[in-house]
Amino acid sequence: MSVTHAKGFIATGLEVGLKKSGGKDLAIVQNLGPSKAAAVVFTSNRAKANPIIWSQQVIADGVVEAIILNSGGANCYTGARGFQVTHSTAEALAQKLGVSAGDVLVCSTGLIGDQLPLDLITAGIETANLSETGGEDASFAIMTTDTHPKRSIVVADGWSIGGMAKGAGMLAPGLATMLVVITTDADVPPAQLDAALRAATRVTFDRLDSDGCMSTNDQVTLLASGASGVVPDATEFAAAVQQVCADLARQLQGDAEGASHDIVIETVNAASEDDAVEVGRAVARNNLFKAAVFGNDPNWGRVLAAIGTTTAAFDPYDVDVSMNDVMVCRSGEPGESRDLVDLTDRRVHVLIDLKTGDAAATILTNDLTHDYVHENSAYSS
Amino acid sequence: MSVTHAKGFIATGLEVGLKKSGGKDLAIVQNLGPSKAAAVVFTSNRAKANPIIWSQQVIADGVVEAIILNSGGANCYTGARGFQVTHSTAEALAQKLGVSAGDVLVCSTGLIGDQLPLDLITAGIETANLSETGGEDASFAIMTTDTHPKRSIVVADGWSIGGMAKGAGMLAPGLATMLVVITTDADVPPAQLDAALRAATRVTFDRLDSDGCMSTNDQVTLLASGASGVVPDATEFAAAVQQVCADLARQLQGDAEGASHDIVIETVNAASEDDAVEVGRAVARNNLFKAAVFGNDPNWGRVLAAIGTTTAAFDPYDVDVSMNDVMVCRSGEPGESRDLVDLTDRRVHVLIDLKTGDAAATILTNDLTHDYVHENSAYSS
Repeated sequence: MSVTHAKGFIATGLEVGLKKSGGKDLAIVQNLGPSKAAAVVFTSNRAKANPIIWSQQVIADGVVEAIILNSGGANCYTGARGFQVTHSTAEALAQKLGVSAGDVLVCSTGLIGDQLPLDLITAGIETANLSETGGEDASFAIMTTDTHPKRSIVVADGWSIGGMAKGAGMLAPGLATMLVVITTDADVPPAQLDAALRAATRVTFDRLDSDGCMSTNDQVTLLASGASGVVPDATEFAAAVQQVCADLARQLQGDAEGASHDIVIETVNAASEDDAVEVGRAVARNNLFKAAVFGNDPNWGRVLAAIGTTTAAFDPYDVDVSMNDVMVCRSGEPGESRDLVDLTDRRVHVLIDLKTGDAAATILTNDLTHDYVHENSAYSS
Repeated sequence: MSVTHAKGFIATGLEVGLKKSGGKDLAIVQNLGPSKAAAVVFTSNRAKANPIIWSQQVIADGVVEAIILNSGGANCYTGARGFQVTHSTAEALAQKLGVSAGDVLVCSTGLIGDQLPLDLITAGIETANLSETGGEDASFAIMTTDTHPKRSIVVADGWSIGGMAKGAGMLAPGLATMLVVITTDADVPPAQLDAALRAATRVTFDRLDSDGCMSTNDQVTLLASGASGVVPDATEFAAAVQQVCADLARQLQGDAEGASHDIVIETVNAASEDDAVEVGRAVARNNLFKAAVFGNDPNWGRVLAAIGTTTAAFDPYDVDVSMNDVMVCRSGEPGESRDLVDLTDRRVHVLIDLKTGDAAATILTNDLTHDYVHENSAYSS
């Protein structure tokens, strides 16, 4: 039930006519408390959509009553009128719920540059019927090119966490592109929520780099109701948040637009974690390598050509590269035959041993396929 | 006649059996002098092929007698044996021509990680017949996935420049991926050749970014015979070198693997040239934007999402973006209707006005197409 699994939350998802393709396109989640603590991580793109600009103000005090999310339009680069649409959306929901508009987060996803029809949104809000079983509908309402909703739950000792995510294209770092709402009935203050969420996104969504493109609308929101009455151990809570984020990130990878392979790029024995991330990301963004994986071609030379563009500390002629456990490059020379590598499974594991230090990082990406080109060449038209 | 247009050069291109697809695969150019001055710009990739490592030693003294280039194999990540193949290739040609192997440049292009068959190369060298009309054959012999050879000539007052290039995939900056040989009969010393070549590549090949992928084998070589007896004006000479490089870069863009659009990204009113380059490159590397152009979809939001990831100085909400002269985004808000933009021509012009300073730069790229994915998913197999 995603965001309504944890106690203290009600939600809904409804169809108000925003998506050309039809289907649910407006999701609402309300925190009934007793705590209204919240934390949000936003896109690091300087081109921020109007709901991002709005939500950055809302979260400043760490208190959130509700969040409303629409698919069918990003409300980005829509100027003063676009900001007014976001503002009015928050006000309409605040009035409906009897809370302050300044405690209502707004998220939007869809095409950049088109105005959202405010009348459809406000009419939808008026008819909305939030319930403790509305989490599933909400998870459908945030989908764009997703083929299925993404939901995750972690049950702990007396408290739990639930979450939903959307994201299938523009999956890049610094947040991987997505809208995510995570709810918990644990009793955790805003500062601790913020620390746990940032720590989790850093090693999950921020390391999902499907197509190198960063969105203008990314927002990962964590709401805590305290309805369980349990104050969890901080370490245990942070681990649970990370578990939900990692699970949702894997689901996003598995549903990336047009992808036929989920590629796990593991870089080990790096001088630093930053180096390992840089190396993994360079491979994740190499179109030639990603196209080769689509063709089930273990073209390891493209891995080495990609990592040679980084500033990470390593000797380019003393690197090992394995693909699906076959060491195709040993110390910068041909290793086992590339014919031994079987890339027919959806999951592909690339292991890069830099032989320099003891740091490691894993980047998730996808292959570059005909379907990716097809979906993204016909998105706005 | 490309590299044999200028006086003092002979060349050939022959088929020795390196390319699975058949066709000419070995090119040789000899400088008959009287001057043997040369300059080379190499890939900035830290993963360098064996011929790059060899050629970096050869060019150290600015003297080059000849250059030999093969397609059908990159000789990269082939270890000590691969370096020996490069060394032996230079020695075989040196013996044939009666020059020092230390004055023979070597270039290779093709798949990374496979050993080149040295015996085929040396047998080819023995039968090679260089002539003043061999430039055309040479331009065919360096082709890989190129659909046609690239050649350019500039005729000046008493001297001239001719060049040939190959490159159709892995076209990225810091040199755009390619092998280029440019010859001139002007009398120009190595240091001046080097300055002119670096100045030219910086604003031509280095601003061609077809697919974001940087090669391990890039080499742009400029050879001067002095056979015209003319010492050209330095500025005029530099301009001619740049003209040849720009012409060859445009030809490479026009033959990029699988491309259906040549995209010219012009960034103006930037705070610095570096900013303008960073902004243009961010757009050139955005797969979503490039796929949209393939679909003739003027999705300008993807331009703004791309440049929002840069560190360039500008206000993301006060940017103008025009596509083929239609200002679709004015001051960060929707401008003219995207329906007015016609993207059916191969050439697409994107104009980004940062409204910050007076610097500008132009980046050349291509769209992301089904054919790109197809060609690069089936390259090594």
